[in-house]
This record gives sequence, structure tokens and C-alpha cells, in this order.
Amino acid sequence: MAYLDNIHSPQDIKNLTTAELENVAAEVRAAVLNRDSKVGGHVGPNLGIVETVIALHYVFDSPKDKIVFDVSHQCYPHKILTGRQNGFLDDAGMIAISGYTNPAESEHDHFVVGHTSTSVSLACGLAKARDLQGQKHNVIAVIGDGSLSGGEALEGFSNAAVLGSNIIIILNDNEMSIAENHGGLYNNLRLLRQTNGTAENNMFKAWGFDYRYVADGNSLSDMIAALKEVKDCRKPTVLHVHTLKGKGYAPAEEAKERWHWSLPFDINSGEVTFKPEGESYNDIIPEYLIEKVAEDNKVVVVNAGTPGAVGLTPEKRRKLGKNFVDVGIAEEHAVAMSSALAKGGCKPVYCVWSSFVQRTYDQLSQDLAINNNPAVILVFGNGISAGDVTHLGCFDIPLISNIPNIVYLAPATKEETLAMLEWGIEQTGHPVVIRVPSSVVVDGKPADTDFASYQAVRKGEQVAILALGSFLKLGLQTADKLKENGIEATVINPRIVSVLDEKLLHELKQKHEIVVTLEDGVLDGGFGEKVARFYGADNMKVLNYGAKKEFTDRVPLDKLYRRYRLMPDLIAEDVLKIK
Amino acid sequence: MAYLDNIHSPQDIKNLTTAELENVAAEVRAAVLNRDSKVGGHVGPNLGIVETVIALHYVFDSPKDKIVFDVSHQCYPHKILTGRQNGFLDDAGMIAISGYTNPAESEHDHFVVGHTSTSVSLACGLAKARDLQGQKHNVIAVIGDGSLSGGEALEGFSNAAVLGSNIIIILNDNEMSIAENHGGLYNNLRLLRQTNGTAENNMFKAWGFDYRYVADGNSLSDMIAALKEVKDCRKPTVLHVHTLKGKGYAPAEEAKERWHWSLPFDINSGEVTFKPEGESYNDIIPEYLIEKVAEDNKVVVVNAGTPGAVGLTPEKRRKLGKNFVDVGIAEEHAVAMSSALAKGGCKPVYCVWSSFVQRTYDQLSQDLAINNNPAVILVFGNGISAGDVTHLGCFDIPLISNIPNIVYLAPATKEETLAMLEWGIEQTGHPVVIRVPSSVVVDGKPADTDFASYQAVRKGEQVAILALGSFLKLGLQTADKLKENGIEATVINPRIVSVLDEKLLHELKQKHEIVVTLEDGVLDGGFGEKVARFYGADNMKVLNYGAKKEFTDRVPLDKLYRRYRLMPDLIAEDVLKIK
Repeated sequence: MAYLDNIHSPQDIKNLTTAELENVAAEVRAAVLNRDSKVGGHVGPNLGIVETVIALHYVFDSPKDKIVFDVSHQCYPHKILTGRQNGFLDDAGMIAISGYTNPAESEHDHFVVGHTSTSVSLACGLAKARDLQGQKHNVIAVIGDGSLSGGEALEGFSNAAVLGSNIIIILNDNEMSIAENHGGLYNNLRLLRQTNGTAENNMFKAWGFDYRYVADGNSLSDMIAALKEVKDCRKPTVLHVHTLKGKGYAPAEEAKERWHWSLPFDINSGEVTFKPEGESYNDIIPEYLIEKVAEDNKVVVVNAGTPGAVGLTPEKRRKLGKNFVDVGIAEEHAVAMSSALAKGGCKPVYCVWSSFVQRTYDQLSQDLAINNNPAVILVFGNGISAGDVTHLGCFDIPLISNIPNIVYLAPATKEETLAMLEWGIEQTGHPVVIRVPSSVVVDGKPADTDFASYQAVRKGEQVAILALGSFLKLGLQTADKLKENGIEATVINPRIVSVLDEKLLHELKQKHEIVVTLEDGVLDGGFGEKVARFYGADNMKVLNYGAKKEFTDRVPLDKLYRRYRLMPDLIAEDVLKIK
Repeated sequence: MAYLDNIHSPQDIKNLTTAELENVAAEVRAAVLNRDSKVGGHVGPNLGIVETVIALHYVFDSPKDKIVFDVSHQCYPHKILTGRQNGFLDDAGMIAISGYTNPAESEHDHFVVGHTSTSVSLACGLAKARDLQGQKHNVIAVIGDGSLSGGEALEGFSNAAVLGSNIIIILNDNEMSIAENHGGLYNNLRLLRQTNGTAENNMFKAWGFDYRYVADGNSLSDMIAALKEVKDCRKPTVLHVHTLKGKGYAPAEEAKERWHWSLPFDINSGEVTFKPEGESYNDIIPEYLIEKVAEDNKVVVVNAGTPGAVGLTPEKRRKLGKNFVDVGIAEEHAVAMSSALAKGGCKPVYCVWSSFVQRTYDQLSQDLAINNNPAVILVFGNGISAGDVTHLGCFDIPLISNIPNIVYLAPATKEETLAMLEWGIEQTGHPVVIRVPSSVVVDGKPADTDFASYQAVRKGEQVAILALGSFLKLGLQTADKLKENGIEATVINPRIVSVLDEKLLHELKQKHEIVVTLEDGVLDGGFGEKVARFYGADNMKVLNYGAKKEFTDRVPLDKLYRRYRLMPDLIAEDVLKIK
């Protein structure tokens, strides 16, 4: 890497010619592909924005000028130019660097960002802080078109427009969300592209922004010229930049959704080199839903801009036809719309990741739960994980299970998951949320469908283990470990998170002295604490296991399990200590 | 009420002449004022929309055609025309009818709605359900301009625009939010008003809507003509209606913010007839903040469209000057912006009601807590209350205290509240959220400022009462009651909700057998359950008191306290039972 070897900060590109910067761009692309091919990551968004980022660092003076990258899907080139090329070139260095912006990594990053649609609001805060303190620098938000449809982004745009001072929003328009774009605002982006930015009807101007358009955002010289023009502007400015998602890597230019994010792959063939083995709920659930829609036209599958993450591939979406609604990145709208679909007589099933359902607490509470409409929500990607700090899936139990009226179910097996889904779709009493297990366990037995009661899986005495959802296996293993120590423990699959089976809990008091709860999520506000409260005035001892309340960032799962004592021998050890 | 006496459903206005409908309008206004003057409620929004609602029910066929009122601030005329005039004319009937839409009251209401910005998303769901089932009817969302700035509304508009079938959005533009409007999108509404709806630059057309403008939305004939034109449209349509907030009641036409909502008042003088007595945090906190801003220019007070609800009157806002930011109804933006203000070196204080902070879970988690920026949030209007189901303030403890990195404090006295606020503003370690007590208790003593530890207020043995925030008084009263039974209980003011003072909790084990927790909020996911978990493996008995997980709707507070056993004698009774 003839150029990158000598670029340790944005200062190092200031004296390069445009031709030299073109070479830098080629090396940045190679570095992005190198990392993505080895450890996986965002491909298309980063390849498309290479020239924009080089031009930003060439024209502006980071970190004095502050650049905020939305959702960070497109921050790799920025990382490469700000002293972190090791994270892209060096196999050992890749682990040290996350795929998201992080102030702990570099003074050129101002926020940890991993959810969409936040950059404009964050930039507004930096700009207002600058103005109040009489400082002079540029504040720049870089937002992709997919992020634009999120409510927080639109709130941010409306407020940025009236800031009355310097704020520059780079709108990276690659004509794509993660999948295709959805929503009326894309009509306006298309019109602006078609008219080379000259259309009179312009939502950004309508709201009060100065507006400029760059037709070829992959042209370094065009980008440099445009950024020089907006630098030090005194008014809120939108620079609408048209780029090609996946630019420079033929497979990614062609199949944009496939290449938004990828598992590790072979650069030459584009073939994925690491494939998770075994059955996946990303296959099981879409297949069930396609069958269900075929037999019942009232069933509607709803998603908010991340269909691939829940197995809703383009082919499966086509099969679902008009019974599939992708609202774009607009999770709040998805929940409210699902509630109203149920009210209107349909049977909606909203598929969402745990990390993103966080965006909808008020919609879950007000639009859905208060109205008690029988919509179904499937929460994928939940549980304690080695994931990025911005994409943890361990907070959904406190988030959802403490809202009245919502039935929150946690199946343990494939049979149970499908039975709960079927039941949730057909019942008309309540909103039903189902926590899709993290891995597929096939039980071979038809599920007992009285989901409001706990199910004893193994009957014993002295110790009862309430092992929720994915952790049923851990509960059984713990019972085995206790058996080695002469204790025949009861193992219970609670199945429901949102209410206690008080009858069963009372009965346990007859032959048990210790209750152990296991949940695949944060303990605070979760399932186990409710059990502890239930037995507060009794002699029953209660041990709760789950995650500590903390943000973890790419900590290996076995390390987390050890830290939280989520291991059969450690739990058994604790139990024996208080026996 | 010559006309209203004969109007029991919308059918009863179908055969009236426009002149007769004008008389209906006058009677509806009188009915609105009658209720508001006696029990309080929304004044200006309801007076402004009378003609729009009469015209809607004259032209459309509710409940077959479905009308969804956003936030319900303007649903009174609709209630009056749909068989509920008793709730406005009859003193006894007023209690039976809420100030919000509610399907339990009438088939003409489709949702319980009390938070802003939801109507378009809900209407989208109804419209899609209609289309899938091959039904034919109109779906109409009625949204005020103030609600338009909320992210959920903008997500809804973007999706409604591409629905491809009938959806009619009545945008009631009275040039006001609850207070004045804030945000760039109002630039476009103004331009459209100024050009009688003809401006080429039109965000609604830009997104794909058909668009029509009514300059005088208080003209019945104009509204009827406009609605007849859009009825049965096949395309998503925005009808932009310009009305006068407070129309027909001189004080409300003049002072629009004052008359958005009012306590009971004398219709002739406009004077409020019921004034809460004593000190209020709505005075104490703004006064503190004004002083603070005067001495430190980095302090910024942030609000999201409800300044009056937290005591930030127009006069106080003027005093705060450029150090006050109202972002309009855009709570998500407010949190993200506050995080960035702190990152940029300022000291933001975001003032928000408990019910509305619910709209920001993901921003609290991602934009604020993961970034660990030292913004301060003051949560007003919290605690168990006799409020409307849509405005309960009892869910913020589970919502906020289970997010890592956030320091959630619950002061009990005025001295403690101000000391915590001062500490929160000056510290730089964490986001700090302060639960403003529901009533002002003056202690007379300077606050101990080691807020990370619990404070023993009364030292005893056998029983320890952890009485959080506003419930410290209840804790002391319970101790008094126990004393009558020979028990000198320890009373503790925990002050911090987000972490346990494990040292103190351990020490309690020496001389206590029972711990009682009291919290002014829902038990599930809250403070007391964490204490129960802490003592799970010990012999300590734990009794948790707080609200049951349920939605309550205008249930008198004393009834709720009795239901939840939040009374000194009932708690003492429970304690003595397990002694």
C-alpha cells in the first residue's frame, strides 16, 4: 500500500494531487475489501463513499472540524485515513478496530454510533455547543439515504434547518437503503437526481436549507470542488451526493442488497467463505410465514428496512407479495401500523431485531399495548452476545415485559416457537411478542400450547431451575451437574416472560428450598427479579442468573458466560454453597 | 342546546343546511367551553377545529369511514357529535368521558390516543387492512401542525405517500404547536399559506401526495366543499387546512399558548378558578436554571414542545435567551442533541415529562448512555397518578434505570432536588437523570451530596424501609405506624435508583429481618425487585410496594393507593403478618 503506508492522519493527504488521491482511493477500496473478506462487515456502503470521505478529509480539518457518520455503515474509509489502517490491512489488527465510529479509537470520531438516523441530531448538538462557546469550525453530518426515513433523522433535519449557523449535511444518495428504499421522500430524491438538483420542488429547500447537488459523488475532483464551496458556510446546508453503492467491486455494484453487509468471502469469486451451519430461524420463520400467507390473506408480514437480517430475502418477499410491507428504516411507524393492521382485521407479524425494537418503546406502549390490539412481533437477534456495543440484544426483556397488556413469550424449541407463532397470529386478545431463540433446538415433541403456564421439564426436589427460552439447555445441564452432587433438581421451561405462573411458584414451595432463574439477557428489570420479588416474604432462596447491567463491546461469549457465571458447574457451585 | 339535543350520531347532521350547521358549530363551541371551564382540558385546539369536524361528519360516513384523531387534543367536537355530548353539557357526565379518543366509549373512535404524531401511521395500518380485505371506505387522519414535527409522524407521512390507495390526511395548520412552532418544516407550511397552497416547493407533493389547501378552515362551506372533493380519492392526499386556534373565544384567540390547555376557569373573565396551592417544581426549577444560565453560559435548557408543562413560561424562556432550545415535538432529537451538547463542552438540561421520555428509549441508550456524555435530564410528571391512561408517569423507573451508564436519582426534598441538579450539571462522568418529586417537601437541611449511597433517615432495627423519592414521607409514616406496634424501624432514603448501595444493604442484615421497599411507580422492572434479587440467597425477607403492572385510566389516587396497599397501616399490617 504505497500511499496508505504513509497516511497516519488526515494531514497526510493534504498535499497530494488529485491523481495521487485517486490512488489513495484505490488503496482504501482494497483495504475495505481486505477486512470485509476476512472478518465480514459492511461492503457496499463503504465502497460507495470512498471519494466523499477522501474529499472531506482533504478539504476539512478534522478533528477541529467535526464529522459525524450516521450509523457508521460507511465509516471504514474514514477509519483508514485517521490512523487505523492496521484494522484493515493487518490480520491481527482487525480485532482491535470495530466496524463503527468510536471516540476511544480516535479523536476523529465523536460518538459511538451503530443505529441509523442519529447523525443530524448529534451534529445539531455539536453546532449549538460551538455557537454558545463562540468557537469557529465546521460541523458535518454524513448520512446515507437509507437512514433518512427514520423519524429521528427527520426530526434532526427539521431542527438543523433552523439552526441559523454552520451545519453541513452530506446526504449520500446511493438509491438504496439496506435493501431497496421505501417511502415517499425517495420520490423527491429521485426527482432531484433526475433534474441534476435543479427541481423547484425540493424538501430541503422547503425546510430552509441551502442545497447543492453532486451528480457524480465518486468523482474526487467534483467532490473536492463541492466541499470547498460549502466549507465555512454560515447557513444550514445540504449537499446531496449521488454515489454508486459497492463502487469498484463488480459483485457489489451488481447485487447491492446482498453486498450491503457480508460474512467473510473470497474476493475473486464473491463466494462466502464462512457459512453458519445447521437450521436457522431465518429460514424456518420466513418459510412458515409464506405458507401462512398462502392460506390466509389477512396475514401481513411487516419489516422496517432490514429484511435480510430476518431471512426475508428478495425471493421470499416476492412470494409474500402484497402481504409483505417494508416500511423502510422507520421502526416506530412499523409498530403503530401493525397495531392498526390488527385493529383493521388483519394479522400482522412484525419481524425486528432486539437492538432495533429499542426504538419503539412508546409505540409498543401507546399505539399497541394500551389499545391491546392483537399484533404479533418477532424479536430476532436477542440474547447475550459477542456483538458490537451498539447492537446488543440483551435489553429486550426489561424493555418489553414490563409494559402492561403485552404477552411476551420465550420459546425454547423449534416446535414451541412455531406453535407460539401460530397461536399469536390466531388469538385476538393481546399483542404477542415472541423472543426467537438464538439457536434452533429440535425437540421432536409437539408443543404444549398452554403458554400462560410454566412447564415442568424434569421433576425433582430441593432445587428448581427456571430456565427461560434459549437457556433451557443450560438449565438441563445445570441439573445434570447437581445430580452429580446428589440433588435431583426440578427444571422448568417458563415460556412466558411477562407474567408469573403464581400457582406453580406456590407449589414449588412444598418440596424446594432454592429457585434458580436463568435468562439470556440483562438481569436488571428482567425475569429473575420478578421471581425474587414473588418469594420475598417466603423462606425460598432465589439465585438469579443473566447478564450484568453493562455495555459490552465484542467480548467473546465464553468470556461473558464465565463473567456472569452462566455455566453449569459455576451455578451448581453457588447452589451447593447456600444449601 | 336546540341542535345538540337532537344530535346523537353523525347521521343526525346529514340533513342540516349550512346555516343550521353554523348553529351546531356555535353550540359545539359552547359545549367545549362548558366542559373545559368546569373540569379543565384542551381549549384552543378544540375550538379551532369545530368546522373541520362538523364538515368531516357531514361529508363522510363514520364509523364506516374511519377518522383517526392525532393526540386527541382536538377530538372534543368529534365526541360531541358522536353521542357523547353529555360529557360536555352535564356536570355528572363529564367524568365518564375522557379527553381523548377511546374505542370503549364509541364505535366512532378507533384507537386510544394521547401522545402526538401517531395518527398517520395508524391510518396507514387501517388503509392497508382495508385494501388487503377488498373493502371500500375512506381512512382519514386528522393531525395538527404541532404533531407534524415528531419523528413518528414524518415516518408515517413518508409511508402514507406510497400507499397507492385512499388515505386522506387533514393537516390542521393553526400556526402553533402547543407553544410556538419550531423547525424547518414550518417554513414550508408558511410558504404554502402565503401562496394559498400554490407554491411549487411543497414537501407533500415532493413526497408523492395529492395536495389541496383550504385558506379558511373555519368556513363550514369551504370545508364541506373541500372534503367532498377529496372523498373517495384513490391516491394519498393531504388536505392542508388553515384554522384559527381558539376560534370563537376571545381570550384563547389572543393568548394561544396559555389556552392550549387550561385548568378550570371562569368563561367570562378567563380567570382560572382552581389554582394548585403551595410551591411547585415548575417554579423552583426554572428559577434555578435562569440563575444558573446567568452565571454559566455553557448551561443550555432543552425542551421538546411542552415548555409550559415544566414551568418554562414565555417570560422565563426569554430570560434563558439563546441558552434555551425548544426543538418542537421531537423528543428523540432532544435527547440526541443533549448528548452532543455535552460532548461539545456544554451543560445541557433536558426537561421532559415521564410519559414523553418514553419516546426516547433508544436515544437514551444509544445516543446518550453508550457515549456516556454528561447531559442532565429532569423527569417531571412522574409517579402513580389519577391521570389519563395515555399520560401515566409510572413507567420511567423500569425504562431508564435498567440502561447501563445512566445515573438515575430520585430526590425526596427540595434541597436534595436542587443539590442533585447542581451536581448533575457540574459532573462530567455520566448522563444523570433526576426524577423530580411529585410535590415539594422542604426539609430545611442542606442535602448530603454523596448521592451514590443510601441515606439512613431514621435508625432502628428489625425492619428497614427503603422509601424512594416522593415516597420518603410514606416510609416515615409507616415507621410511625410500626412504632405503635413496638417496632422501631429504620427508614432509608435511597436517593439513587440505578445502582444498589450494596454496602448498606449488607449492613442491614446485622440487625434487620425485613426490608420494605416503596417506590412511586410500577413494581415490574423497578427498584424494589433489585433489592429482592440482592437478598435472594439471604434470610432477609423483602416486601416490595409500588404500582401493579397495569394501565389505569383516571382512577382516583386514593383508590390506587388502597389497591396497591400504599398506605402506612396496610404496609404495617403486612410486616406484622410475616414477623
